[in-house]
Amino acid sequence: MESYGLGQLKNFEYLDHTADIMFHTWGKDLKEALEQMVLIMNNYMVELDSVELDDSATEQTISVNGHDMDSLLFALLDEFLFVFSTEFIIFKQVQIISFDRENFSIKAIGKGVELDKSKHTTGTEIKAITYSCMKIEENPDKSDIHVIVDI
Amino acid sequence: MESYGLGQLKNFEYLDHTADIMFHTWGKDLKEALEQMVLIMNNYMVELDSVELDDSATEQTISVNGHDMDSLLFALLDEFLFVFSTEFIIFKQVQIISFDRENFSIKAIGKGVELDKSKHTTGTEIKAITYSCMKIEENPDKSDIHVIVDI
Repeated sequence: MESYGLGQLKNFEYLDHTADIMFHTWGKDLKEALEQMVLIMNNYMVELDSVELDDSATEQTISVNGHDMDSLLFALLDEFLFVFSTEFIIFKQVQIISFDRENFSIKAIGKGVELDKSKHTTGTEIKAITYSCMKIEENPDKSDIHVIVDI
Repeated sequence: MESYGLGQLKNFEYLDHTADIMFHTWGKDLKEALEQMVLIMNNYMVELDSVELDDSATEQTISVNGHDMDSLLFALLDEFLFVFSTEFIIFKQVQIISFDRENFSIKAIGKGVELDKSKHTTGTEIKAITYSCMKIEENPDKSDIHVIVDI
């Protein structure tokens, strides 16, 4: 048997690390389920229980369009993710104030604060929204949404 | 506009978190590439640079079989993962002492120590070996292996 020295780690590389997580939200109607989906995304990045809407809180109005319900949902999440990525605003409250189902457009107001790592409990970075397994189910009393995001 | 209180997170769940990573190893021959693959797996769970083979080091002989090269590779990694999961032995040196290509069987000796979190730098738990994108390439001067594991 050869010397053990030959059997040590030397020729290797780590490749293609991928990860995702599925979010499921619901509400009495689609509007509420959509609001919840924006919030769960924020909560995954920063625990909303650790976020207080104090005097520094800001409001942002966000308008998005799609060509169908899936792309509208995608655009809504993507826009909030963009605001977090560029302005570091974490939204604890979200309300859809206009929901045009014929033209697939949404106007939403978010209330949040700038991320402060000394106060807020950070979670996991979301790299991208995906269409993978996206599901929007609307029923008379309850609507459900499933979205997978890359992390 | 309704009160902001309506727009807070309440109806949600996180589902189906999945993650994987691809390992790529190589060697002058398939035997060496296989040894490296066992080691990279150990290194991903516990940084082997932080592991010293001192007097407490133990040797284990592992015998595995497959019905083809892919299943043999799978069995080899699965067996070492099993030893780590049940006995917490982390292997820093591995040598294949018998490699029967006709019957797809391997006997390997691993040298390692029991995990000690006060001394060793732990990495990421590996939940399962997979056949996904598994690739074994044998060439005259160099052999390569790709394996994806679930984490």
